Amino acid sequence: MGLPCHLSTAPDAIMRYVMKLSELGEFGLIDAINDTINESRVVTQPSWQKLIIGIGDDAAAWHTDTSLQLATTDSLVQDVHFDLDTITWEELGWKALAINLSDIAAMGSIPLYALVSLFLPSELETEDILKFYRGMMRLAGNFGVAIAGGNISKASHIIISITLLGEAQDNPLLKRSTASIGEQIAVTGYLGLAAGGLKMLQQKMALEDKASSTLRHGLFLPVPRVKEGQTLVSQGVKAAIDISDGLVADLYHICDASNVSAVIRTDMVPTHPTIQACFPDYLNLALYGGEDYELLFTAGKDTVENIKHALDCPVTVIGEITKKEGTASVKLTNGKGETIPGERKGWEHFKNGKSNTPLP
Amino acid sequence: MGLPCHLSTAPDAIMRYVMKLSELGEFGLIDAINDTINESRVVTQPSWQKLIIGIGDDAAAWHTDTSLQLATTDSLVQDVHFDLDTITWEELGWKALAINLSDIAAMGSIPLYALVSLFLPSELETEDILKFYRGMMRLAGNFGVAIAGGNISKASHIIISITLLGEAQDNPLLKRSTASIGEQIAVTGYLGLAAGGLKMLQQKMALEDKASSTLRHGLFLPVPRVKEGQTLVSQGVKAAIDISDGLVADLYHICDASNVSAVIRTDMVPTHPTIQACFPDYLNLALYGGEDYELLFTAGKDTVENIKHALDCPVTVIGEITKKEGTASVKLTNGKGETIPGERKGWEHFKNGKSNTPLP
Repeated sequence: MGLPCHLSTAPDAIMRYVMKLSELGEFGLIDAINDTINESRVVTQPSWQKLIIGIGDDAAAWHTDTSLQLATTDSLVQDVHFDLDTITWEELGWKALAINLSDIAAMGSIPLYALVSLFLPSELETEDILKFYRGMMRLAGNFGVAIAGGNISKASHIIISITLLGEAQDNPLLKRSTASIGEQIAVTGYLGLAAGGLKMLQQKMALEDKASSTLRHGLFLPVPRVKEGQTLVSQGVKAAIDISDGLVADLYHICDASNVSAVIRTDMVPTHPTIQACFPDYLNLALYGGEDYELLFTAGKDTVENIKHALDCPVTVIGEITKKEGTASVKLTNGKGETIPGERKGWEHFKNGKSNTPLP
Repeated sequence: MGLPCHLSTAPDAIMRYVMKLSELGEFGLIDAINDTINESRVVTQPSWQKLIIGIGDDAAAWHTDTSLQLATTDSLVQDVHFDLDTITWEELGWKALAINLSDIAAMGSIPLYALVSLFLPSELETEDILKFYRGMMRLAGNFGVAIAGGNISKASHIIISITLLGEAQDNPLLKRSTASIGEQIAVTGYLGLAAGGLKMLQQKMALEDKASSTLRHGLFLPVPRVKEGQTLVSQGVKAAIDISDGLVADLYHICDASNVSAVIRTDMVPTHPTIQACFPDYLNLALYGGEDYELLFTAGKDTVENIKHALDCPVTVIGEITKKEGTASVKLTNGKGETIPGERKGWEHFKNGKSNTPLP
């Protein structure tokens, strides 16, 4: 065993990372961490040998003797991801589990066990924490998830961090890295509702009850597409991601990982009727808003047709995977085939929230 | 599926928990959460059916087709568990994984995959985060653990939350709830080093280099007893816990879970020579200090003798499991068999750190 007293870091190896997280950004940091792990991992160890998906996809996956195990972890941080002035504790419990279920859905596998870590200020009311668990248990029950354990610590702000474990049997997994040129790009459900809900709350918009309730639902009580993800796998789909950062940002994640580009027909993007009615900029909400937790996937035309029949929810073709020229790009077009301006923007931590890069 | 719009909580069910976390404390909160989960879980679902250890032990465990899977999660919170003025980033990476490895060690199983969630302020230096990963990878490599994934979020304070997954093959697990009356109580290694290290740093004690380095090692670079835990299982031990809260506090966890009491011979407690030399109150450090990450276990006399031969580290018998009279209790005695005063104290979140209750 390497002795702990030898713990030291060669200074030259990390000179290239002399910058603050706010300069490097979340995705740059993930790349740097990945490099650091790859430099020092013992690739011959059984755990590394059996790991088939590591850092960089929606969930990690590894072989056991009889199946594939999956694990994902996602978090909600007070005043970064949520505001107790707008979300209820029950909704917070639901959403904290939903965002993790959505990552398992995006791999097309079966969620099983959750470990829940809570970081809480001492002055919180106990009943609020129990309401949080009631909201979470409601969603867990719907998807057969058992709360197996967790951890509780004192902290200055509320943070909820959930690890969700799942399993896949015979079929391969949905991945970000397996999109092919010529495949159609499709999405489940409608987009933009969560972003509309956030805008309504942030701008204190007074909307009629039905619209307000629909938007709030979309933002705080998303229903992850778990069954739909499993159907995608069984129908032969290879590439998918859940829409958490935003349609364009998440399509970029697929293009980067698959080494391809994409073109979207913005007039085909299924925007929710409520955002069409309430927000003049509803297309932007659907393209860049995020947190819809719908599935974005790519597949051949026949497969997409089969999926339209197999799923109860809407499935809409919005574009096509194309050959990459230079760097991976996502091109936006209108109904006449004309390119329209767009941005590569979506949620990125450390860079003051949303980061913006004009599309090519 | 239950519709999310039905999310609401019956007010009468939570009336008994109208109090702040600072009044209820960490362990009371865990009990309340457990009640809430048990009220609403769907016990017929396969995930609940296969779960054999849920909330309340060192790790959760469930059956798969061919083995037992284990999962544990533990965290380090800045200014609650660590202070960047004293610990280096490499040490922090080592320790964050070590405390999780120790939970898997306490169940006697094999650690395999870690998911690392980091909550970080934007003004941190990237190279420090990479030093953190280097420290963690050093320990991971020693125990065959692969870093399979994780999550990164912006936050106002540093929080590190790791979920560690493991596996057990044929043998049963070590649990807190399986100690039997008449069994000997034994510990691996020496106790009190971590508490001595903390005291040295907090009181800015000027000690000679060797003592200072030994204490610092004990506090920041604990080596979890992973192999030792596996040996305990193979030798037939049933009950164990790792010493994280403190010897007395953790023995209370075993007594509470096993419905027994215990008596400790304080003169037999293996205190580390360095704390004997540096601290007049060294026995208190060993009894109440915590963070030693040694294993505390119970077993019959012959089994303990076999374990002394099977392990490379010291194994010391310090007492005996006794019949519970009234509530579970841990009695402290001196070399003459006289009862000496003690307290039920150990780390508890929300109650301003250490909580104190006089022993019976």
